[in-house]
Amino acid sequence: MELNLPESRSRSIRCIVKLGGAAITCKNELEKIHDENLEIVACQLRQAMMEGSVPSKVIGMDWSKRPGSSEISCDVDDLGDQDSSEFSKFVVVHGAGSFGHFQASRSGVHKGGLEKPIVKAGFVATRISVTNLNLEIVRALAREGIPTISMSPFSCGWSTSKRDVASADLSTVAKTIDSGFVPVLHGDAVLDNILGCTILSGDVIIRHLADHLKPEYVVFLTDVLGVYDRPPSEPDAVLLKEIAVGEDGSWKVVNPVLKHTNKKVETSVAAHDTTGGMETKISEAAMIAKLGIDVYIVKAATTHSQRALNGELRDNVPVDWLGTIIKYSK
Amino acid sequence: MELNLPESRSRSIRCIVKLGGAAITCKNELEKIHDENLEIVACQLRQAMMEGSVPSKVIGMDWSKRPGSSEISCDVDDLGDQDSSEFSKFVVVHGAGSFGHFQASRSGVHKGGLEKPIVKAGFVATRISVTNLNLEIVRALAREGIPTISMSPFSCGWSTSKRDVASADLSTVAKTIDSGFVPVLHGDAVLDNILGCTILSGDVIIRHLADHLKPEYVVFLTDVLGVYDRPPSEPDAVLLKEIAVGEDGSWKVVNPVLKHTNKKVETSVAAHDTTGGMETKISEAAMIAKLGIDVYIVKAATTHSQRALNGELRDNVPVDWLGTIIKYSK
Repeated sequence: MELNLPESRSRSIRCIVKLGGAAITCKNELEKIHDENLEIVACQLRQAMMEGSVPSKVIGMDWSKRPGSSEISCDVDDLGDQDSSEFSKFVVVHGAGSFGHFQASRSGVHKGGLEKPIVKAGFVATRISVTNLNLEIVRALAREGIPTISMSPFSCGWSTSKRDVASADLSTVAKTIDSGFVPVLHGDAVLDNILGCTILSGDVIIRHLADHLKPEYVVFLTDVLGVYDRPPSEPDAVLLKEIAVGEDGSWKVVNPVLKHTNKKVETSVAAHDTTGGMETKISEAAMIAKLGIDVYIVKAATTHSQRALNGELRDNVPVDWLGTIIKYSK
Repeated sequence: MELNLPESRSRSIRCIVKLGGAAITCKNELEKIHDENLEIVACQLRQAMMEGSVPSKVIGMDWSKRPGSSEISCDVDDLGDQDSSEFSKFVVVHGAGSFGHFQASRSGVHKGGLEKPIVKAGFVATRISVTNLNLEIVRALAREGIPTISMSPFSCGWSTSKRDVASADLSTVAKTIDSGFVPVLHGDAVLDNILGCTILSGDVIIRHLADHLKPEYVVFLTDVLGVYDRPPSEPDAVLLKEIAVGEDGSWKVVNPVLKHTNKKVETSVAAHDTTGGMETKISEAAMIAKLGIDVYIVKAATTHSQRALNGELRDNVPVDWLGTIIKYSK
């Protein structure tokens, strides 16, 4: 595997956050962003990055022309004597939700075969859809004063070999973080050495980043409270509060203590999710936890997500916190 | 200088095309695309890439939801038995026009100093604006059946050292071309080893790409017929049809033969152009010509641009062709 790693990094990464596609898009409407959630997520992210310090005001960083206006307004004049806020280092990765999946599944991009016209067209169409979403997320976070930088995995040299990450330019990601920016990556259509092309999911990207950047913790923001023992829509569904991952990568539920052990944890998976749902998420999360990095799966835009993003769960977990913690245990 | 170059390439690059900011955006209106020009440019580009072969139909590759619609329409079913069109290899680089320049000049991103809050915010704002334009150009070309792939220079690892290109991941560009796609790069805000950050212009990117990818010819699409001896708005302005570049990089006009030699060639430069206008273009073009690669500067969306893109000028230039050719002459 070819990796460009940074020679040195001045300060460690605090957190990698996954903005789940289901949390930031409307899953039952094609290519529609869940603006309300996204705005709260951006606000919570900023608060978490500030590590408790209170800024005088939010410096908006999206100076685009607003629809219906012919001028650009930015409060540049207010910036002159403002200190540069020291943010702790975060990386954001988002899923595709209702963007990209239609294009990918309609053309079969995940199965490869770039020589077929439909796959090639679908590859282009998928990238247009996911980069469109990426731009909107970068803008929403920038409006909240987070210095976001779009880093599309395809352009950053991410490629796969039979769906496993084969190359990735992590040195540009690290340099971007060290320059005080927040890289925003996403699930993407990429070239594959064996298949021609495939879909690289946001979850796989997170695992890879976690492995090489060694953040203190990883947060998955999703649209349900966490991982349940069966589809969360069922009345008896039990929220799994803590999952322990063993040295061999296997995992078991340690809290609550389940009477009837369901081997298979079922969860709601939207039909258009071509990159796997909660099952994939748990196995990816387990691989991250195995590195000694705690993983929190939590509902976006809630008090629970704010606490997880703040890192309040690192030492002890408040009893009233709702979500799933996945930890390594020897 | 750190360069990741491909080990081998299966077929050579035919042409690098610059879509000038002035040609594809409305220069007097902020963040407004010149849709009509862009559509013609896309159509001409596609014709040039087909090398004369007549396709049965255009396979649209932007399957995004149209405004006001809740569904995505794509003519996927028609693709099944269609042969994959063999396009000759093109690379597209576009300028910023009325995108990005406001944000860059307002904050002084080109002067560096990322530690200043205004520069940092302006850096983020500039990238949002230019990546927004990039997405729209990628979509316009994809609608015309060109398999475009957005490759934002920042994410592709382009960085500078006192404004000179210091690193660039050209292997991903080459791999993208070899997979049958058309990379679309653009002028961008990038990190600079010495200054902290700066603006990397589309013209500098083209020169760098030309140097390493060795295309057969380079076409600059602009909003005037070519290079004039004075601002083209003046009644006596003379179109310079051929400029010869010497071994030392100096250049002189060889057609027409000018009576009153104006040492300085003046041209219309929009006030918001922070990366230099026609003067920069000529010196960048001269550096490309010095590599033995012909450069054509021509008005976008005209019969002249179509002929230039087709490569019809390689052997001899028709007398009725209007534009500027910049050639190396020993």
